Amino acid sequence: MDKKTLQNFAALIVDMGVNVQKGQEVLVRCDVGNPEFTAMVVEECYRRGASYVKVEFSYGPIQKLSYNYRTIESLSGVNAMDLEVQKWQAESLPCRIWLDSDDPDGLAGVDTEKMAKANMARSKVFKPYRDIMENRNQWTIAGVPSVAWAKKVFPSLSDEDAVEKLWEAIIKCSRADKDPIKAWVEHNVNLQKRCDFINSYNFEYLEYESSNGTNLKVGLNPAAQFLGGNEKTLQGVVFNPNIPSEELFTSPLKGSAEGVVYATKPLSYNGKVIENFGFEFMDGKVVRVIADKNKDVLEHMIRMDDGACYMGEVALIGYDSPINNTGILFYNTLFDENASCHIALGMGYTNTLKNFEKYTKEEQNNMGVNDSTIHVDFMMGSKDMNIFGITGDGKCVQIFKDGDWAI
Amino acid sequence: MDKKTLQNFAALIVDMGVNVQKGQEVLVRCDVGNPEFTAMVVEECYRRGASYVKVEFSYGPIQKLSYNYRTIESLSGVNAMDLEVQKWQAESLPCRIWLDSDDPDGLAGVDTEKMAKANMARSKVFKPYRDIMENRNQWTIAGVPSVAWAKKVFPSLSDEDAVEKLWEAIIKCSRADKDPIKAWVEHNVNLQKRCDFINSYNFEYLEYESSNGTNLKVGLNPAAQFLGGNEKTLQGVVFNPNIPSEELFTSPLKGSAEGVVYATKPLSYNGKVIENFGFEFMDGKVVRVIADKNKDVLEHMIRMDDGACYMGEVALIGYDSPINNTGILFYNTLFDENASCHIALGMGYTNTLKNFEKYTKEEQNNMGVNDSTIHVDFMMGSKDMNIFGITGDGKCVQIFKDGDWAI
Repeated sequence: MDKKTLQNFAALIVDMGVNVQKGQEVLVRCDVGNPEFTAMVVEECYRRGASYVKVEFSYGPIQKLSYNYRTIESLSGVNAMDLEVQKWQAESLPCRIWLDSDDPDGLAGVDTEKMAKANMARSKVFKPYRDIMENRNQWTIAGVPSVAWAKKVFPSLSDEDAVEKLWEAIIKCSRADKDPIKAWVEHNVNLQKRCDFINSYNFEYLEYESSNGTNLKVGLNPAAQFLGGNEKTLQGVVFNPNIPSEELFTSPLKGSAEGVVYATKPLSYNGKVIENFGFEFMDGKVVRVIADKNKDVLEHMIRMDDGACYMGEVALIGYDSPINNTGILFYNTLFDENASCHIALGMGYTNTLKNFEKYTKEEQNNMGVNDSTIHVDFMMGSKDMNIFGITGDGKCVQIFKDGDWAI
Repeated sequence: MDKKTLQNFAALIVDMGVNVQKGQEVLVRCDVGNPEFTAMVVEECYRRGASYVKVEFSYGPIQKLSYNYRTIESLSGVNAMDLEVQKWQAESLPCRIWLDSDDPDGLAGVDTEKMAKANMARSKVFKPYRDIMENRNQWTIAGVPSVAWAKKVFPSLSDEDAVEKLWEAIIKCSRADKDPIKAWVEHNVNLQKRCDFINSYNFEYLEYESSNGTNLKVGLNPAAQFLGGNEKTLQGVVFNPNIPSEELFTSPLKGSAEGVVYATKPLSYNGKVIENFGFEFMDGKVVRVIADKNKDVLEHMIRMDDGACYMGEVALIGYDSPINNTGILFYNTLFDENASCHIALGMGYTNTLKNFEKYTKEEQNNMGVNDSTIHVDFMMGSKDMNIFGITGDGKCVQIFKDGDWAI
């Protein structure tokens, strides 16, 4: 990818993504494979007056060695060093930039149960710090190719060509090919307009129907609303948590989903790719996991904690989305979730509640936003999906017709 | 470089370098440029029963951005996260492996004074922890090519060819080309024999003479001895702190060096390359810095703290050393210091004192081992250097003749 485009992309991540404020600190998490691009991002942060940019490089195969060789006790422990990094995030509220390059098959062969147990134990220790941070610091996730990821998406190409092709797709899907800042300003305005429109109906629930067998009712939370595009920290700093982002999303009412939903794209979870799966819901809870292969991974996932089997998010994206139109399956949630309507199991977004900042975390959860240590998105939009919004007085509005926005 | 050779090299670093013990933790510090080799080292550690291997990747250009953009106050501060990593090293005594890939010109253009002040401030905070660790945990430094380093050594080659050529040189100089473990067992025996021989004379001082103007007398410490090759932690674990290592070294008697010494190879310090320089000593202290260019870097260096202008080490290496015989200037202390007799300014090695473990750090320094936050080696061996050892009763023994061992 040419240097100018990469620099524009780095500036997009720093300006629109986290919107670094003068004097603020920044944490960048990334793969070792793109140090030059990481350095561009770091320099953009400093140019905007960041006081300190901490970069944490990682390399998937070393993480895999760790899961394979370390004992469950060792993996479950949180050492003082890791805790200090978490404390820093909760106390100094640095911007957090995650340059995602994960190999979709990176953890293949790892003992799923061992990994899940260890991650759950660690998540519990980190949770209080994460809760303190919520809605307080700017964060963003953007995609950056690694060879492993690029080869998964374009297996027939050489390493170099695959990486270049994935860069092209990422830049295009991230609306970073031509004047990215201008494109994102416009994009945010459009997403906001759509939010305003759908929120004006105050739907009581959504009904999903598709020829693949999906037949699902999801109760919406009267205290919540649909959000899309940029968000605002409690201090009022606007940021874009996802690059790309095409979705309108909300956190549904905990305990009120009924029916069956089938995934329409594979899910890459903990380094495993799970295809052809679905869930049955009753009283908002998963009561049945449907899967040909790797069913155990999903079973473990929904048992991670009490909230893991409830919905945390429903998101609406037209089938005619720029990402879906590339025709590329990215094997990466950030991209694939913005190509199709999806649902997440686990933690909900408390900032979807109106005036969320007036409530404690506990109150927010009591208001019907699910809580969990996990948040796993899966795609369920299809070409012939119809979605209806039903209001409290029984009015039915078709929101999606044949996979795309009807309004 | 072929995989088998790299695996043997990784095993050499883990077995002979740090000699990881079952259940021990390990800290690996390395450049982002060789993740596959780093993963080999990590796996060797786990195979030997390491309980946890922490890898800290770094990338030179990001460090440079940090020096250029951050304020001196910000750079001088030690945050709680960095301190926690230091505490862990002092308390859990992990093996420390440093895979050195530093670009010799990596910090060119950085404000030397700003960098020196910041480093000094940070060193002071870290020093108590470093002092606790001394001689307690196994550590090793080995060389691994980065593109930037390889291109400095072989500027006319392509990136790929330069890296391959540097790998070849590193593997050869590290005695890792054929059965590395066997080669190192033999090598350690030979270095020990030479140590025993030179220590048997109990020389009062060494006299260096060379046609380049070097004329220097260095007082030896009657309480100290020459060491070489492997070392032992206080717990009795044998390790090799340097791969390669060709030197016999000791910490001279603080306050008893007289005369002039000229460097015979460039010095790469804080990312700057300093050529054609020397020092004049009086009562053990540098009283004059001689340099055509970058003299300010050296002036700053010897003013880092009270001990920075005193010698910490003298080391003897025959001109006919395997590294010198490659004819390659590595622009890297680990290699270049093992190609030629050298001297270090700054911190001395307290473990050169006989029964050093019986004394406190303060007592060790009072016994004549210099203390400082710096330790900077420079090469001063030459093809026509003669070195004489003078005993307390006036006996003169020629140790080096025409640049090589005479005994």
